[in-house]
Amino acid sequence: MSVLPDVVPATDLPGRITIVEVGPRDGLQNEKAQVATPAKIEFIDRLGAAGLTAIEATSFVAPEWVPNLADADEVFRSFSRRPGVRYPVLVPNMVGFQRAVVAGATDIAVFGSATETFARKNLGSTLEAQFEMFAPVVAAARERGIHVRGYLSMCFGDPWEGRVPHEVVVSAGTRLLGLGCDELCLGDTIGVATAGQVTALLGAFADAGVDPATMGVHFHDTYGQALANTLAAMRCGVTLVDTSAGGLGGCPFAKSATGNLATEDLVWALTGLGIEHGVDLAALVDTSVWMAGLLGRTSPSAVVRALAGGH
Amino acid sequence: MSVLPDVVPATDLPGRITIVEVGPRDGLQNEKAQVATPAKIEFIDRLGAAGLTAIEATSFVAPEWVPNLADADEVFRSFSRRPGVRYPVLVPNMVGFQRAVVAGATDIAVFGSATETFARKNLGSTLEAQFEMFAPVVAAARERGIHVRGYLSMCFGDPWEGRVPHEVVVSAGTRLLGLGCDELCLGDTIGVATAGQVTALLGAFADAGVDPATMGVHFHDTYGQALANTLAAMRCGVTLVDTSAGGLGGCPFAKSATGNLATEDLVWALTGLGIEHGVDLAALVDTSVWMAGLLGRTSPSAVVRALAGGH
Repeated sequence: MSVLPDVVPATDLPGRITIVEVGPRDGLQNEKAQVATPAKIEFIDRLGAAGLTAIEATSFVAPEWVPNLADADEVFRSFSRRPGVRYPVLVPNMVGFQRAVVAGATDIAVFGSATETFARKNLGSTLEAQFEMFAPVVAAARERGIHVRGYLSMCFGDPWEGRVPHEVVVSAGTRLLGLGCDELCLGDTIGVATAGQVTALLGAFADAGVDPATMGVHFHDTYGQALANTLAAMRCGVTLVDTSAGGLGGCPFAKSATGNLATEDLVWALTGLGIEHGVDLAALVDTSVWMAGLLGRTSPSAVVRALAGGH
Repeated sequence: MSVLPDVVPATDLPGRITIVEVGPRDGLQNEKAQVATPAKIEFIDRLGAAGLTAIEATSFVAPEWVPNLADADEVFRSFSRRPGVRYPVLVPNMVGFQRAVVAGATDIAVFGSATETFARKNLGSTLEAQFEMFAPVVAAARERGIHVRGYLSMCFGDPWEGRVPHEVVVSAGTRLLGLGCDELCLGDTIGVATAGQVTALLGAFADAGVDPATMGVHFHDTYGQALANTLAAMRCGVTLVDTSAGGLGGCPFAKSATGNLATEDLVWALTGLGIEHGVDLAALVDTSVWMAGLLGRTSPSAVVRALAGGH
């Protein structure tokens, strides 16, 4: 299909966005169906061929924690590196970092929590102790010239704690940056954020002296807000946006099959807004249709449904 | 469920929005499955009970054009009028207007096209002749103190003509207002609009001296842009927003089961933004789950899926 929106730029948005494609990691990790290792490798190759320049490839987490990702080493060894494309991987601790280094990673991410409860449940750590866990990882990465993303989850609400005060998020986020992370990504892990909250939280980071150019956003579409929230963040100067091809993934805290913001739906928006993104929409839709077939379900992406008919 | 977003108002949005619920008309008209007349009546009653204050009830179009709406007279006679709730109906011409008057309508809508091709295909008219067709309807309505909405379809793109210049839309829209319409609703009939286009078109109307308080927007979520586009329109001062409960409807010009912006997804956004809307979200989700059961399909609304588990 060659359907594309009319291009009418907005005056209050950045001229270029870097899409961080998280389908192979955050997406597949949260799907009920498992995908075979060769398909994961092909997925990463196809995403690169579709023009994505940052593809979160896998996670070097202990296999007993996330069985879906037990093939991280094989996956990371096997896809075709493309020039100009970054392939970040998640590392939870020094053990994961060593595996990532052996596998040849040049981009890593640590995954922190903005809230005490999620730090305990997801990391088996306290809010405070997570920074001690990440400190040697970030330091070792910097020594090797490895780029480090600091993820912060539950920035806009926590299923156990409810409201998360902005000062709590800013405090945790600036500590991650203070450890030496090159970028900070704010995650709406349960998808509850709305646009005013996004603007206010990014304003609080700006007040704390954090450059929006070092920040990314990661929205789940649980309540249909992900694109509106992303545009709100972009109006604050954020240019790193996480999405998953076809909207892969899900929210473990809602009765929903909706995962991350679908890459295709963001690409449609960026194309219409005249914002550079580098992605071939038709190739990406083909990839998501193929992956939906492997998972045995239809894609929740509106663009994939509209262009490919329910796949 | 009592899940609701954290409330963080935005500074650049109106304090109150009137949701125009179009599920019973635009929604059901475009569903493949037919709904029995008693269920249509119950649907309108349940929407009123959920707090919606403008419910587009039906269309007095010739039954041979839209068989789904052949029961318009019976539907319009049978639901329970609630104080403070408007129940607009579509009337295509003087024949439909007389039927609406006999049925007791106090709010009507005429349905125009911004493009020549859609005027011919949808109205069997030319772009020019549609105004002659609507003029006596609007005049007769005004004589009786009946409120008139002027719909304009294909404002952001046309499946046959492609791009629709803003000056063409502004010209057609101001002519509808010039006939005496109380409000003008801009429709993105095929769901292709993006946010910058919305801002630019509303800016063109403002330049032509049209007060945004007299304007509404009607977005289909075909490409996942409906909420972002609605927020863009609200930032321009628009306070009338069309949605359908559960995202009912579809786009006849795309391989998509996605209809209008889902009322629930807008309600989530407005609640989080601290914008008054008057809707009881839980009652509305229950209504959409019930209607999805009648239609034999799941709702495309993210909020309905998250709160009710895929119904």
